[in-house]
Formats: sequence, structure tokens, C-alpha cells
Amino acid sequence: MSSTPSRRLNIHNINPHVKKAKYAVRGELAVKSEEFRAALLGGKSGLPFTQVVSANIGNPQQLDQKPITFFRQVLSLLENPELIEHEGVLLNQLGYKPDVIERAKWLLKHVGSVGAYSASNGVPAIRQKIAEFLEKRDGFPASQADIYLSAGASSGVNTLLHVICQNDKSGILVPIPQYPLYTASLSVLNATCVPYYLDESKNWGTDVDTIKESYESAKAAGIDVRAIVIINPGNPTGASLSEEDIRNVIEFASQEKLVIMADEVYQTNVFIGEFISFKRVLRQLQKEFPGKYDGVELASLHSVSKGMVGECGHRGGFFELVNFDEHVQAEIYKFVSIMLCAPVIGQCLVELMVNPPKPGEPSHELYHKEYTAIYEGLKERANALHKAFEQMEGVECGAPQGSMYLFPTINLPDKAAEAAKKEGRTPDEFYCLQLLEATGICVVPGSGFGQKPGSLHFRTTFLAPGTEWVGSIVKFHKEFMDKYR
Amino acid sequence: MSSTPSRRLNIHNINPHVKKAKYAVRGELAVKSEEFRAALLGGKSGLPFTQVVSANIGNPQQLDQKPITFFRQVLSLLENPELIEHEGVLLNQLGYKPDVIERAKWLLKHVGSVGAYSASNGVPAIRQKIAEFLEKRDGFPASQADIYLSAGASSGVNTLLHVICQNDKSGILVPIPQYPLYTASLSVLNATCVPYYLDESKNWGTDVDTIKESYESAKAAGIDVRAIVIINPGNPTGASLSEEDIRNVIEFASQEKLVIMADEVYQTNVFIGEFISFKRVLRQLQKEFPGKYDGVELASLHSVSKGMVGECGHRGGFFELVNFDEHVQAEIYKFVSIMLCAPVIGQCLVELMVNPPKPGEPSHELYHKEYTAIYEGLKERANALHKAFEQMEGVECGAPQGSMYLFPTINLPDKAAEAAKKEGRTPDEFYCLQLLEATGICVVPGSGFGQKPGSLHFRTTFLAPGTEWVGSIVKFHKEFMDKYR
Repeated sequence: MSSTPSRRLNIHNINPHVKKAKYAVRGELAVKSEEFRAALLGGKSGLPFTQVVSANIGNPQQLDQKPITFFRQVLSLLENPELIEHEGVLLNQLGYKPDVIERAKWLLKHVGSVGAYSASNGVPAIRQKIAEFLEKRDGFPASQADIYLSAGASSGVNTLLHVICQNDKSGILVPIPQYPLYTASLSVLNATCVPYYLDESKNWGTDVDTIKESYESAKAAGIDVRAIVIINPGNPTGASLSEEDIRNVIEFASQEKLVIMADEVYQTNVFIGEFISFKRVLRQLQKEFPGKYDGVELASLHSVSKGMVGECGHRGGFFELVNFDEHVQAEIYKFVSIMLCAPVIGQCLVELMVNPPKPGEPSHELYHKEYTAIYEGLKERANALHKAFEQMEGVECGAPQGSMYLFPTINLPDKAAEAAKKEGRTPDEFYCLQLLEATGICVVPGSGFGQKPGSLHFRTTFLAPGTEWVGSIVKFHKEFMDKYR
Repeated sequence: MSSTPSRRLNIHNINPHVKKAKYAVRGELAVKSEEFRAALLGGKSGLPFTQVVSANIGNPQQLDQKPITFFRQVLSLLENPELIEHEGVLLNQLGYKPDVIERAKWLLKHVGSVGAYSASNGVPAIRQKIAEFLEKRDGFPASQADIYLSAGASSGVNTLLHVICQNDKSGILVPIPQYPLYTASLSVLNATCVPYYLDESKNWGTDVDTIKESYESAKAAGIDVRAIVIINPGNPTGASLSEEDIRNVIEFASQEKLVIMADEVYQTNVFIGEFISFKRVLRQLQKEFPGKYDGVELASLHSVSKGMVGECGHRGGFFELVNFDEHVQAEIYKFVSIMLCAPVIGQCLVELMVNPPKPGEPSHELYHKEYTAIYEGLKERANALHKAFEQMEGVECGAPQGSMYLFPTINLPDKAAEAAKKEGRTPDEFYCLQLLEATGICVVPGSGFGQKPGSLHFRTTFLAPGTEWVGSIVKFHKEFMDKYR
């Protein structure tokens, strides 16, 4: 071809809001790591490592985590219901227990085929089971009419932000550091992200005074702040909010009339403290002070992607709306209906997550064993990684609290910052890229999540099996520091 | 509660673009039909029918269509790979053929776990298989790098419109009648829909002169028209474009520098004419006139939801980009990465669709039998329904051409229009509501798809089994006409 063809679309005339969006978790480093992986698979030598470790994303089953047997046995029957006709074979030769078959029959009765669209907000019977789970978890009633199945929590966040934001002056309070889904979605929507910092010196705590400051200065700048996002337990920090913190946030939201978006997808990944849902505290406050909190709107999100389930490839999730106006809910229903429905097999997995085998049921023993082993394994690996970080020069990292991540501070020498600048990179980007190129370990620079000016971090999952890769980080870090000291 | 709680969000202050969006396929009538279904299930009497027939949406497996055995057998092994260890049981006792096991192993090798996130644009090996399918279909090369897996075609349309539209002056040419995904997505994006009418007198043909008129008047009104949507075969009309029609559209797009969005999800649902892909014709033109068409950008979409696959609940689909700028493609990649990836089991189903058992392979005979039976069944039901419409007073309907729908014109008496007006409804809405209330049959008023002013239609699928419901429509129609004549 002699000349560049004259196209309609180029980088200068497409949607500027899409262009502005940043999503580092799957950005340059992730793409590069996939190239390395392909090169290694293709037998290409020349790389100083033999495997790529994707510690950039919470993708449990890409690494060590085995799916829970009960879940996958039920799903296999949903995909091929003809197997159910061979009950004897399933039970006697394939290790299926009677409760697996029973559950598959129940789901098929209510879902019909997993190949059919469901209701736009999800299968009614599954929403009912979610409501029962929430009632048991929180000690307060829940209604299936307020529950919306989604394709992972991400799709739920997308829906909620779409409806909540009215125009480019609409502001959403977002914690920093944060999972970049929020900033990226707000960019695409051309709404305003109002950042508030978490307090690293207090184990990444959520401080209402800091939130207030951000809120007030946004308001002074003409921003119509409408909602506050809380990620609890935190991503990338792992921190769980105490009941008092939650009360303070609700009180603030009530005063300033803010919708609360509680991203609670790591609710079972807790090592320090405990998970307390926003719903429980809000309903408790409504009970203690009748009428006062009835206007506080809460949307809380959960998913099958994280926790001990770890089924992110199935794109299952849900959100519950509390105290929302019915007409607003009707618009949310319409919005989700444009994309028809969440993947139905993912919806079924949500049902299995919220309603796992109970003690005494045939599949319970194995379920419990697998679940506990995953939990203990995550904790163990988190602690091993943390221990390694503690020994590294210039690295500071609080004890692992929860989620699937550590987010250490890295204090890098000035010479490293200068070398980064020469390449047009931030120092944390530069560090993470060097780490990837030297070891095949892919982590995400702190700038991908936001960090206080002058501070540097990276986020790594603690999902990868073995300890060899941890050793590689230690070795790389020493060499990096020696080089740039 | 004594007073209405004071909330942040109400119908007047949420996103006005979401509010403006219309999606009738799952609108008021669909919701009402679900209420009727629940009432019937609950044993509530008083309704003049015993079942609800959801003819409002192309949801094959909700009605009669059985999943293809080969597909579901493979998926069952992907969900529970432990079954593969019992090869003898699978082969000798459960009716699995060796190629089912082989395919599951191949997919697992390339996908890893279906519970893990894949690359944002989809599993590379699956994209490669799609490229091979497209090469074979079109006779021109295809590259896996230009293919993006999506959660059904809807999600692909959402992605493309997001990137293509720059601001509220960005216009997209959309056929009328159309599948309301397009108008709804453009409303949400606050971009401009530029409608062009299909020609009912020529079997809903696509006429470039009509397109030009719409284009010119939009341009004169200051709209920056950027793309043209073609639904081929049509929804709701079923019409297939001839090669000449396609050439004309490409020529026009080339002259006016428009991106072509070819929604080709019904490519196997063709009864009259044949399916010719836009890709094939575009590449042919590029070959015939070197250089001239290299700037014509085409995005073509396909999905597992329709055709003889009918697996819409699995939310699988893909789009291929042709002649797109690489920087624009990078932005598309980033956009899809914000939602992480399409459901992985749905991606596997796409692979199965584009690479079904070949003649001579163990599963081919059954696959072919099932596939053909579904095709013939659809055709038969379409013809039976068409025959019934031909006998109905004031109803005009062309022969079934393809897709899953008929879209008859209904000429209603003035008294019906008056009665509709009294209820604040359009006459077609009024008719469809009366039909639902009298018979339990849910169809969609033509106004949900757009129709020429003064003309009235409804869309019905021909998926529902049996002929009883067709008789109910005939009977209702006669009574309706008698009442309002």
C-alpha cells in the first residue's frame, strides 16, 4: 500500500471520553506480559525468565485456585441436563452427590434452559435466594424486587453510574487508591470523579473528615456531588471498615444527601477485622432513629469473581438497592434490559454462592474442606509475601488485611526517578516495567489506582502459587536499588 | 411511614439520556405478560387463557428449541473437567462421542479454566478459530487481531457506538423499522439517530436513494453523520440484502466516509434469498479497485443467540473490524477491558458455533440432524403463521424471508384508533395490549421498532411451538375487528 487510506475514524476524532479513560490493570504492562507469555510458549529464548506470573489482576483460577467441586458439578448438569437422566452413573461412578442433582433440578425448573434469556433483572427464583442470603447475613428483610443480577460487579457499577450521573457536573466521591473501574467509567460517562484519600498511616482507613474536605472543595468548585463509593474490604488496600466508620459514612451521606455505592465484592476475603455490610448498619440506624435515614439510598454490590468462589470468567454478580425511589428503579430496570440479561449460567453460580451446601448435606464436607483450604492458602501466601516485603530496602507494607492484594509503598532512589523521567514514565511505572522485564512478574504501578503525590506503590495479588516468584521480587529489588542508589 | 423520605435521586434528576431511551421489546407489555405468567403459575384463575406465549422476543430455548447436543456436551466438560478423567463412562454410558472429549480438551488447553478471566478481547485461540471461519465463509483472509469477543452482539454494538460517537452532533444512520438496541444505545450516549426507512413495498428492501435523503437532511441540520447500521438479515423484517444492495451501501459509505456497522446475527436464518456478508463484498471491491475502498471501515457482528444455535442466555458473540486504524483499535481494546472480558463459557460456545463437527466426525450426524430439524421447524412455523395472517381482515404480510420474526401491517378501524387515544396509547400498542389480555400472547407494537407515520404493525416471533396460539390470534383479531368496525 502506497499511502495511508483515508478513514473516517482516527485517534483525534473518536469519543474523547473513551480516550481519556485509564485502566492500568489491563494496560501496557499487562499487554507486554502477554507478549512475553506468547514468546515463551513459542519457545523463544532470550528472556531472562521461564514463566510469566500475572500478579496484576485478581484472577484466581488463572493461577492456583481450583474451582469448588459442588459448584462445577451443578453447572455441568445445567449445561447438559440429559446427564440427569443417568442418576445412577452420576452417583456411583462419577462422584456426584444427591444434593448436586437435586440443586440442578431445582435450578432448571426455575431457569428453564441456561441458553434462554432470563428476565432482565435476573431469574426471579435466584433473586429470591439472594434475598434470603442477605436476610441471613444482615438480620434484616430483603426483597427480590430490589435485586438485580449483573455480569460481574463491574457491569452493576456501570449501570448505577449511568443512572446516577445527570451531566458533566455530577460528581462521585471515589476512594484513592481505588480500583480503576470507577475512574474509567466516570471518564467514559463524562462525569466528575471527586477523589478522597484513604489514610495509609492508619492501615488505609476511611476517614470522614477527609471525605468532607474533598466534598466541600468539589462543591465549592460547582460540582453536584451525588454519591460516594466505598470499597469494603478495600481494593487495592484490603482494609475493612469498622461499624463506627460505616456509621460515620452513612451519617455523612444522610446529611449531604449522597447515594452510597458499597462495593462489597471482597466480603469473604478478610484476614484482619470483620466484614460488616452497609445494609446491616443502615437498617440498624433506620431502626434506632425511625424516619431519619429512610432517604439514604444504598446500592451494594457482590460477585462470584472473588472470595473463595473465584469464578470471574463466568461474569456473575448482583446488586441490591435499598431505599431507592420506585421510578428510579424502573429506569434501572429499563437500562439493564437494553443488554437483555446477565449470563444465565453466571446467575446460577450466584445462586450456588449464596446458597452453598449446608452442614449435614451430602456435598457439605467436601465444600467446607475446599473452601477452608482456599481461605487458608490465600492467607498463608499473603503473609509470606508480606514477610518478603518487610525485608526489602525502602519498602513499607502493612500486614495483609483482606481482598487479594498487597499495596506496598516503595521509596525509590532519586536516580531511579531521573531514569524514569528520561523514558517519560512515572517512577513506579518504571520500576514495575523493569520488574516485568527482569522476572516475568506483572504487577500494577500505584499510579494506576491513585496515590498521594510524592508517594509510590505497586499492587500485587497474592494468588500465585509457590514462593519462587517472591524470591525473584526480592532479588530484583536488591539489584534495582544497587543500580540506582 | 408518614411522609415520603427525602431521597437524592428521583425521576427528574437522574441521567436524562437513560430516561429518554426506549426499549419496547422488554417494555410494558413484556412486564405485564410476566405478571400473567406468575398469576397462572400461582393458580390464579380469572384470566381467559391458560398459558402465556412470549412471542415478543427472539428467545428460542424459552420456547421449543432444544440446544444442540454436541455444544452442550462440550460445555458440560468445560464446567466440570474432572468428567474427562472418566472417558470410558462418558463414551459407553453417557452417549458422549470421542470428538466431544477432544474438543473439550482442546478448549481447556487454550482457555485454562472457564472460571478465569480471559484476555479482554477474548481467548486468542478462539479468535483464531473465528478468523478461520470468516476466511472460509468469505474467501478472504481474516486476522484474530481484528476480532473481539463480546457478551452477545448487543455488547459489541454498545462498544462500537461508544467509540464512534464523538459528541451529541454525531449521527448514526439506523434503518426503520430496527431492533431498538440501536436507538436506545444512541439515546443513552446522547448521540443522534438518523433514521432511514426500509421499503415495505419491496419486501423491506434497503434503498440507497432513501439513505442518501436521510443523510443529506441530517447533514443540512448540522449532524456529523459517522456511520450506517445495516441489519442483514433484517430485524424485525427478515429481509436479506442482495450483493448489489451491499455494493451500493459500500459505495455510498465510501463516498461519504461512513463506518459500516453490519449486524449479521441472523446470517443463518434465511428462507428467501441468501446471506452475503459485507466483509466479502468489501474485500471483493478492494480487490477490483485497488486502493479505492481501503479507507472503508466495517465492523460486522455475529452471536450465538440466534440461528440454529439459539443460546442467547450464554451471552456469546463477536465482532470483526475491517480497515480500522490501529490507534482506534487500541481504544476499543481499552474500552472492552474496563468490563474485563466476555463470559468465557460464552466464548467457548462461539468457538463451537464457528467450528461445528465436520462430516465424518463422530458427532456430525446428530449435529446435522438437529441443525436441520431446527431450520425446517422455524421455516414451517413461519409459513403457518404467515398463512394465518393472510386470512386476517386488514392484515398484510410478505412471505417469511428470514430472521425469527414476521412484521405484518395491520389496518385498524378508526373506532379502534379513537379507543386507543382515550387510553393515551398508539393504536398498535392498544391492539397488542388487547391481544395479550385476551389470549396471553405477547407481541411488540410496530412503534417499538419505528414505522412510517400512519402505518401500523406488530412484530411476532415464529418460535412458539404448536398451532393453537396462531388460532388464538385469528380469533382475537376477528373479534377485535367486529368490535371496532
